[in-house]
Amino acid sequence: MPLETPSLENLSVLTGKYGEEGDQLLFKVLNSGDFLSKTSADDYAAGSRAMVSKISKKGLRYDLTVPFARYVVMNQHNLALPFKRYQIQPVWRADRPQKGRYQEFYQCDADVVGTNSLICEAEIIAMINEVFDGLGLQGFSIKINNRKILTGITEKIGASGKESELCVAIDKLDKIGEEKVFDELKERGFTQENLDQLAPVFKIEGSNAQILDYLGEYLQSSDIGTEGVEEMRELLEFTGAYDKGDLRYSIDVTLARGLSYYTGTIFEVKPTTVAMGSICGGGRYDDLTGAFGMNDVSGVGISFGIERIYDVLEELKLFPDTNQQSVQVMIVNFGGDTTNHALKVLGALRNKGLNAEIYPDSIKMKKQLNYANKKLTPYVLLIGSDEVKEEVYTLKDMNTGDQHKAGVDEICEIVQRS
Amino acid sequence: MPLETPSLENLSVLTGKYGEEGDQLLFKVLNSGDFLSKTSADDYAAGSRAMVSKISKKGLRYDLTVPFARYVVMNQHNLALPFKRYQIQPVWRADRPQKGRYQEFYQCDADVVGTNSLICEAEIIAMINEVFDGLGLQGFSIKINNRKILTGITEKIGASGKESELCVAIDKLDKIGEEKVFDELKERGFTQENLDQLAPVFKIEGSNAQILDYLGEYLQSSDIGTEGVEEMRELLEFTGAYDKGDLRYSIDVTLARGLSYYTGTIFEVKPTTVAMGSICGGGRYDDLTGAFGMNDVSGVGISFGIERIYDVLEELKLFPDTNQQSVQVMIVNFGGDTTNHALKVLGALRNKGLNAEIYPDSIKMKKQLNYANKKLTPYVLLIGSDEVKEEVYTLKDMNTGDQHKAGVDEICEIVQRS
Repeated sequence: MPLETPSLENLSVLTGKYGEEGDQLLFKVLNSGDFLSKTSADDYAAGSRAMVSKISKKGLRYDLTVPFARYVVMNQHNLALPFKRYQIQPVWRADRPQKGRYQEFYQCDADVVGTNSLICEAEIIAMINEVFDGLGLQGFSIKINNRKILTGITEKIGASGKESELCVAIDKLDKIGEEKVFDELKERGFTQENLDQLAPVFKIEGSNAQILDYLGEYLQSSDIGTEGVEEMRELLEFTGAYDKGDLRYSIDVTLARGLSYYTGTIFEVKPTTVAMGSICGGGRYDDLTGAFGMNDVSGVGISFGIERIYDVLEELKLFPDTNQQSVQVMIVNFGGDTTNHALKVLGALRNKGLNAEIYPDSIKMKKQLNYANKKLTPYVLLIGSDEVKEEVYTLKDMNTGDQHKAGVDEICEIVQRS
Repeated sequence: MPLETPSLENLSVLTGKYGEEGDQLLFKVLNSGDFLSKTSADDYAAGSRAMVSKISKKGLRYDLTVPFARYVVMNQHNLALPFKRYQIQPVWRADRPQKGRYQEFYQCDADVVGTNSLICEAEIIAMINEVFDGLGLQGFSIKINNRKILTGITEKIGASGKESELCVAIDKLDKIGEEKVFDELKERGFTQENLDQLAPVFKIEGSNAQILDYLGEYLQSSDIGTEGVEEMRELLEFTGAYDKGDLRYSIDVTLARGLSYYTGTIFEVKPTTVAMGSICGGGRYDDLTGAFGMNDVSGVGISFGIERIYDVLEELKLFPDTNQQSVQVMIVNFGGDTTNHALKVLGALRNKGLNAEIYPDSIKMKKQLNYANKKLTPYVLLIGSDEVKEEVYTLKDMNTGDQHKAGVDEICEIVQRS
């Protein structure tokens, strides 16, 4: 089922959920009316940070996940758990715009909350496969990992508790390479011994099953790590069972995902033939609703970045040319009595399901044809005075220039067939 | 073709376009970062009105028409005129929320700019008829008028130049009645003689053609009034010619519409059996793009108020019950080996176009059935160990309780047929 939430949320809902950088990027809306009335000169003197809470109570949503968690908590007594929803709405970030980064962009989220079944993860992997196959995108990789495995790794290498440092650093592996990740980890307090233990993890190769076999052994001393491996094994079994088992994804133990609320499986999709960051990502969170006072509700979700996907499809020329075509046939307007007859034909063509229009003014035919050409309209229909009597009109194919005399029914057939 | 414009517009685009009340209702967004850095203690002392321009450059759009005009001007060299677009997006107003009035709501606009052909008005009337017929709404009235007729009336009654006062007052006719409208007009400087001349206009009755015949005579001394009547006659001819001529609308000379940028035909749709204001309205504007430096571009457009239409349909119970139904068949999860087989069946059902889900956890069957019931799911599928072997499963009709053994193909047939 679809869900929509309001664009404006209380800042108390949004603040502190996206890290300090996220708080900076929230668009804040001025209180209505005399917004300064509840402030003092002292507040003003204290500067922007102190002032903002006095003059702004609401902000534009930053993602769809936090409003969704707020919604679930507010409606917990009416929802049938497990609750599934999809949500396609814009989000706003006061970021410097650049390629793949927008101040306003659409996210398309799908989440299930109220169950920790790994079937949900399998469903998400099926969904990702179906979406990108449906869009005709061939070069994409779906990587998955599990936060419990990452925690297990920190235990195994003797760096317990440094999970988030590890995640932040290895998240950059694609961009800066292994060596620089190791440098960064050193700066963040990892010892050479930690890193020596970590090194083999970066070298793991093989099928998903082989990777899990390796990790099962590597992490056997870590309870949480073992749990993560077991979860991944179960997921592998579910995705294998789902219909024909042709679901694509690969386990990548270096996948970390920045956001801190993930606690289990994490997902990331990237195009492989276009330079563009993540076009889809998500994961399992065990306590997202906790911030709003509802504990122990596990959920898992995914977010598609619509504009980035659009940019990728555009770059790969995967949109059909006909996408720009809105009208199938344009009736040329010769004016006088023919116009009324043309309107009758227009209504008849539309009643038969055709996207038809009439040029609104009876200007020179050449100009009208130019207009049809500019709009990539494949057919125009000429209705002159003689043709009004016979109720047979001249259909002109704008690509070939061919003309053909036909009545309404035949016109529909020809245009729909083409 | 669809169009979307950004939610945030520069306040210079929005301000001054919706009257003083509209300016008050604009949501203004705080500038990013240290928004106070370009202000002084003097600015603060000068109060909210003076301060706002220093700390806020952008606002949320208030309607779709002004951003559309801004878009047309910015893209004038790339657009094929006449340019048509539809646009379905939220707009925001810092209003006190109440029935039929929201802080965030969707508008659905359709406009044509770059022609003054009345065929566009006829198309809009056809569109309104089709939309509300399609929604199954029977009790609605489409009223139309022409600003030129209203101007002609002010000339005819000897109150030239008082067109906007006339419009503001008669706009309230539905709410306050004829007597109070006359009181208000007196307050606004209309003489008793003016009102005596005006009175017959309120009594006009008959078919659209009869009303136009009356107005043609009544307004023959006014050039602009006569022009308005001629336009309405041409429109009546076009709508009569359009296909079967079953387009409903009535000319109402007391229709005024508040917004000041209309210069020709105006439209308004109201439900007749539910207490709710206008659910759709619009009109022709000769100079909307003038505010952005592009003159002499006539256009005409209409705006549907989605939430109000939703409220009306809801009140009249016109939404089908099945609207809440998202899943056609839920597979009960018995756990163990059957789950993998159930996932295979799930994928197969979906490949055949069914909306299917599996309950994610293998909890008590009763709880799973309750969940399906709560979601109004019409069928559940039971896949036990015996059934896995035979690949024949038990389909249970949740309304009748009937159970039937069937394979995947037959299940699809039964569920799709129901």
